[in-house]
Amino acid sequence: MSERDLVARIQRRLPPAPPWMLVGIGDDAAVIEPERNRAEVLSVDALVEGIHFDASFVPPDAIGHRALAVNLSDLAAMGATPRLALLSLVLPSALAVDAFDAMVGGLLRLASAHATHVAGGNLTRSPGPLLLDVTVAGHVKRRQAMTRGGARPGDEIYVSGTVGSAGAGLQMLEAASPQAVSDAAGPCVRRYLYPEPRVRLGMLLSRNRAASACIDLSDGLSDGLYRIAEASGVGMAIDPGALPIEPAARAWFAARGVDPVAASLAAGDDYELLFTVRPRTGRRLAAAIRHGGTALTRIGVCTADRAMVLKGAPGEPGGDQELPRVGYGHFQ
Amino acid sequence: MSERDLVARIQRRLPPAPPWMLVGIGDDAAVIEPERNRAEVLSVDALVEGIHFDASFVPPDAIGHRALAVNLSDLAAMGATPRLALLSLVLPSALAVDAFDAMVGGLLRLASAHATHVAGGNLTRSPGPLLLDVTVAGHVKRRQAMTRGGARPGDEIYVSGTVGSAGAGLQMLEAASPQAVSDAAGPCVRRYLYPEPRVRLGMLLSRNRAASACIDLSDGLSDGLYRIAEASGVGMAIDPGALPIEPAARAWFAARGVDPVAASLAAGDDYELLFTVRPRTGRRLAAAIRHGGTALTRIGVCTADRAMVLKGAPGEPGGDQELPRVGYGHFQ
Repeated sequence: MSERDLVARIQRRLPPAPPWMLVGIGDDAAVIEPERNRAEVLSVDALVEGIHFDASFVPPDAIGHRALAVNLSDLAAMGATPRLALLSLVLPSALAVDAFDAMVGGLLRLASAHATHVAGGNLTRSPGPLLLDVTVAGHVKRRQAMTRGGARPGDEIYVSGTVGSAGAGLQMLEAASPQAVSDAAGPCVRRYLYPEPRVRLGMLLSRNRAASACIDLSDGLSDGLYRIAEASGVGMAIDPGALPIEPAARAWFAARGVDPVAASLAAGDDYELLFTVRPRTGRRLAAAIRHGGTALTRIGVCTADRAMVLKGAPGEPGGDQELPRVGYGHFQ
Repeated sequence: MSERDLVARIQRRLPPAPPWMLVGIGDDAAVIEPERNRAEVLSVDALVEGIHFDASFVPPDAIGHRALAVNLSDLAAMGATPRLALLSLVLPSALAVDAFDAMVGGLLRLASAHATHVAGGNLTRSPGPLLLDVTVAGHVKRRQAMTRGGARPGDEIYVSGTVGSAGAGLQMLEAASPQAVSDAAGPCVRRYLYPEPRVRLGMLLSRNRAASACIDLSDGLSDGLYRIAEASGVGMAIDPGALPIEPAARAWFAARGVDPVAASLAAGDDYELLFTVRPRTGRRLAAAIRHGGTALTRIGVCTADRAMVLKGAPGEPGGDQELPRVGYGHFQ
């Protein structure tokens, strides 16, 4: 199948181009009318077979879903409204057309759910792994973009949804027989295969000016905490008992003799938002919670002394520990 | 070397961020102030080792140069002024730091020459080939974006610079010993390794409204002609004697018993601009030529009858032929 045929297969499934798309797929570049009085937010992220996913247990529609989800999650972390995506697909010649269609289908379903239009891209052959490199563009009011660098001592630390879920889901998929995998439908496996980028929550946090700093959790909770702390120049004290660990994940880790807190700090791929909130701005946060539809959990506080601390329970042996700097870097 | 270290190596070499870059490298996404009263132009293109280049004779700085050049060439074809690039680099673990630095250096030199700022990106490990996926953004006045679809019967067809050069250069590199390659400095080899995107010419054609349709030559002259013809709904009559074939390329092809015209129609990677011009708008074109610094050659005319014809010389045997539909599609 030629590049032209594959592009046509994508084009047939696209919704009508919005009026701001002056030139869409099929020319040398896309031409876009910017949103008035907004700053533009741009991000790119690649999903590489064998590094970011194992095609033996991640079905094609989940591959397409995840390739866009990780990018929408970056926009969510900035508080941006998504607008368009460019798809750069690098395809092994062995990839079946059915798998291509399913992959594109998974991506376009998520795009449609977030009003994100495919404005162009590039297809090329791969001599190696399947690779999906997605660029997304969105917009945000100039002063409402959330960064990693705005946290101050005293700010409270929140995380959306649950942590450790995708990490447990990945382990479940790795451990299961192919048959069991296709039947698996637990929240952990679903979270790993079809993460939900917190786009709406990010927009609400940004519009309500509820968050002083924000990041999305791609490489684990611990990594996210360290990155906000370093960019903001603060320390953090985290309450391990407060972590919103998915019950199914907690049970999975515990049954394998692994401390659920340590596992949930290290596990990646949850794509929740981690953010900080100034004390006494609870009303703004409440507005974001009320309309965002996602549970938010306070897990700690920013400190002036730069130390990264996992609090011990009062009266328990061990006491405070240094927050383990663990994570998922795909270069390690 | 960790992802963080490699990002730091890139960041150290970047010029100061321009004032319109509100958030640059190091956060979840880049935040950009749009250019006032301009449409935005976006393009993405991947360079894959083993498909688009052979690392045994393409040095790392040329790999970096080409990865950005192919994208700037897409902006040039639209008449856009480049502004920023996002770099998604997928790196084999065997890639040496020296090679990484040289690759980034080649890319940043070309970026600097075209006032293109690196606003962000992504680094990941590759289990297979080296891959550089670059997204570029630029801007153009709304009604001055050039597309492939504006040619009408009677429009004259022009190409910038020379054709066949990069194709001959690639063959020279493939045929030479490694020693000879490093000494090679002919125009064909240079064109293949360090193509010059026609950014300034594209901007001038667009501002002077000199071109009715435009495309850049990535997959060969013949492919470019067919694409404009199809998008515009015209035919074309091409004068083979007029093609601006690089003398060194002509000699190379002829010495191997290959028709230089056929070879130059099929050869890719020249990254010249192919465009059409309404009759009697010569003054606008002259303005573009005067300031663009690139030779322009009239190679044919658009026709109403949809046929794609390579003209025969009057009185010579053979006469008119169908323009061969050859090209370079990386899926064939």
